[in-house]
Amino acid sequence: MAQSPSFEESAVCAALRERFGERFSTNAAIRDHHGRDESPFPAVPPEAVVFPESTEETAEVVRLCAAHRTPIVPFGTGTSLEGHVHAVRGGVCLDTSEMNRILSLNAEDQDCTVQAGVTRKRLNERVGQVGLFFPVDPGADASLGGMASTRASGTNAVRYGTMRENVLSLTCVLADGRIVRTGRRARKSSAGYDLTRLLIGSEGTLGVITELTLRLYGIPERIASAVCPFPSIRAAVDTVIELIQLGIPLARAELMDALSMKAVNAYSGLAYAEQPTLFFEFHGSAEGVDEQACTAEEIARLHEGGDFQWATKTEERNRLWEARHTAFLACLALRPGAKAITTDVCVPISRLTEVIEETRIDLEDSGLIAPILGHVGDGNFHSAILLDPDSEEEREKAHALNHRMVRRALAAEGTCTGEHGVGTGKMDFLEEEHGEALAMMRAIKQALDPMNIMNPGKMIRLPDPP
Amino acid sequence: MAQSPSFEESAVCAALRERFGERFSTNAAIRDHHGRDESPFPAVPPEAVVFPESTEETAEVVRLCAAHRTPIVPFGTGTSLEGHVHAVRGGVCLDTSEMNRILSLNAEDQDCTVQAGVTRKRLNERVGQVGLFFPVDPGADASLGGMASTRASGTNAVRYGTMRENVLSLTCVLADGRIVRTGRRARKSSAGYDLTRLLIGSEGTLGVITELTLRLYGIPERIASAVCPFPSIRAAVDTVIELIQLGIPLARAELMDALSMKAVNAYSGLAYAEQPTLFFEFHGSAEGVDEQACTAEEIARLHEGGDFQWATKTEERNRLWEARHTAFLACLALRPGAKAITTDVCVPISRLTEVIEETRIDLEDSGLIAPILGHVGDGNFHSAILLDPDSEEEREKAHALNHRMVRRALAAEGTCTGEHGVGTGKMDFLEEEHGEALAMMRAIKQALDPMNIMNPGKMIRLPDPP
Repeated sequence: MAQSPSFEESAVCAALRERFGERFSTNAAIRDHHGRDESPFPAVPPEAVVFPESTEETAEVVRLCAAHRTPIVPFGTGTSLEGHVHAVRGGVCLDTSEMNRILSLNAEDQDCTVQAGVTRKRLNERVGQVGLFFPVDPGADASLGGMASTRASGTNAVRYGTMRENVLSLTCVLADGRIVRTGRRARKSSAGYDLTRLLIGSEGTLGVITELTLRLYGIPERIASAVCPFPSIRAAVDTVIELIQLGIPLARAELMDALSMKAVNAYSGLAYAEQPTLFFEFHGSAEGVDEQACTAEEIARLHEGGDFQWATKTEERNRLWEARHTAFLACLALRPGAKAITTDVCVPISRLTEVIEETRIDLEDSGLIAPILGHVGDGNFHSAILLDPDSEEEREKAHALNHRMVRRALAAEGTCTGEHGVGTGKMDFLEEEHGEALAMMRAIKQALDPMNIMNPGKMIRLPDPP
Repeated sequence: MAQSPSFEESAVCAALRERFGERFSTNAAIRDHHGRDESPFPAVPPEAVVFPESTEETAEVVRLCAAHRTPIVPFGTGTSLEGHVHAVRGGVCLDTSEMNRILSLNAEDQDCTVQAGVTRKRLNERVGQVGLFFPVDPGADASLGGMASTRASGTNAVRYGTMRENVLSLTCVLADGRIVRTGRRARKSSAGYDLTRLLIGSEGTLGVITELTLRLYGIPERIASAVCPFPSIRAAVDTVIELIQLGIPLARAELMDALSMKAVNAYSGLAYAEQPTLFFEFHGSAEGVDEQACTAEEIARLHEGGDFQWATKTEERNRLWEARHTAFLACLALRPGAKAITTDVCVPISRLTEVIEETRIDLEDSGLIAPILGHVGDGNFHSAILLDPDSEEEREKAHALNHRMVRRALAAEGTCTGEHGVGTGKMDFLEEEHGEALAMMRAIKQALDPMNIMNPGKMIRLPDPP
């Protein structure tokens, strides 16, 4: 969207510039950077970008914007995948990167409070100094505020949960500039509605998250990783199902299909078997990890899994996980010049094999290259559909594949998005997934943001404001 | 509250009687039974009680009541503790006990779907047949719908979480009779607002929960329990803090103070040391439990804990836990004829000792008998303040003690209720705990229940409806 010619002359622009000076910009390059995420959708820059440093400054921005009915689009690191930061109704981008302080760290309580712009790697550097870590790992070095907003998870959610389970409370600026704190530092509470969970996953449509109190965990005494190839997706998935049923506390159980393994071999000069493969991680005491590992090898063998390649030292583990961590780039390199549509569905684990297998056939029939990766323990998987960005035909084909994937997941009692969120990309599926519940969401949105200025045009379709 | 003389002649009474026949009652004894929970507050019977058998029938009840602006008070087993079921604005009690079917059980996915009236013991009998269990254990054999409504937890939340973590999705009838399903069976989802968590803990004020999809867990290979006395509350709490920091996955870590131990000794003819005592439970593989047990004994010894009394066989464990399970009755027996006010606050675990110690002194100064019990791992503790129900002076004293306990918890960054909920008993504390967030809750309540007919007069104070 081109900048409205009048924005530079608008009262809201003048007010924000006067208040924030250098920390407010209408520069085209800055706007452009803030109008795109990692989705394949064309960039939609905001009309300006502002960089508040605190909850109070965020509230000032929101109050100024609210006074002029100017939309506000919160921005963390721009690593979302469904167009979450695209300024589809114009307005001001609220970049949280200057809210980057770790406000408190309570080692005995295993919690900390951070500003929303702190990234997960920075947090882990800091809390690692006292033997703690924050487990949620979506891959990208995203901001904690952004991760909460999209209800992010990643590779170790099977053990540690998602952002839903790992945020104790939030500070949020509502659409009228009021500041709310949704809870305290108690581990549990029955004191009123769970506003924390309501805001987690709300994608900036109910307010701007400015601070988070997070759960931390002790770094395990021992961490061991292993790679194991399987003759089929089913064999790999069934192995994970049985391990979970046996109560093995898998820290990670990542599936890569044969095509993904081929991609990482080529990209990183590795020599893994080009078969469906599980990447495991086990956390615990030395004896505990040994026992988990033994059981995992035994169950995998029953499902015709190959030999486990083990890594326990940090460097070895990093090398072993490199295949998984570089998978996205490796997949892109399967087709030079291609862009990827990253799909994201989640189903009950008992349905995972059939849904992946049907998807596999559908992808192959399409003629497009599309490796599959999954967080098996959660029933969540992705494919990276590679396409020529200049080919309208391929784009349409890829979108149709994505839609069929979602329909298949919904038919299997699953969800259209396991961890990436709705943004603009998945709005059309919410009606099908939620039915009447979507009307309930709409009622909440309208009650809390009656002018529809908080990240409008995302997640929930609304009638235009009065 | 006396039944309004006009209710029997009202249109809503006639309509409900015609539709539900024998499953609708205005009988005084039935009304009286439904007008009380386990709180010390005087009973407030509803004007009638209806027993729907399904979500659709519940929706019919709600639509009929909504058409006449008649309040609806959902009722599970009446084991709430803060006046949740008292019909303070009159209206119809919706008893869920006939919604008692287990609708599906998916062993591979470790989940099940039940009607709201199924109790946790019945559920565990059924799912135990396939080697699974549902962990949330608030003590009472409550209904799952009631447990979700109050965000219940209990002794093993430290390992397995509360109802917040163990409900995958809900079916709920909203204030206008619409039926919503808040999610599917996927383990995680980023598809829209987290209505599941919004309804959990909403105490019937946003709708009536009629069905729940629940997480289940494999019954551990080995369960071991142990009792250990400590020289002080601090020594016991510090032991638990260190065990959590070491990553020991405690399944239970229950604290009883010296007075509680004295009470159970007297009540059950036991001979425990009358000192602050921890009741532990460990779940895992045989080797895993042995290792956890060794570590726990070692850390306890460092804090001058006494010898562990162990129990691994089911019968021995039941005997050992009898002290904890009968604690409430045992405490009541310390003062024959007394009633108890059961308090419930939750603080960060690093603040637990100081808050308990200050509370201990305050209770002793009051002259009332009040043993203390706690779910240490969560920072949650209760006291049972024993009082003569006919003494206005004692009642006032007990309420004042409860208030000071809440203030102390809030000052320690804790919450006024860890697991019992708000009901009528803790409404006055929410303003202090939540500030502006309470206004946000009020906006949600008004958006979803504009006539304020869903369990009105509970949790959130509202202006009278237009």
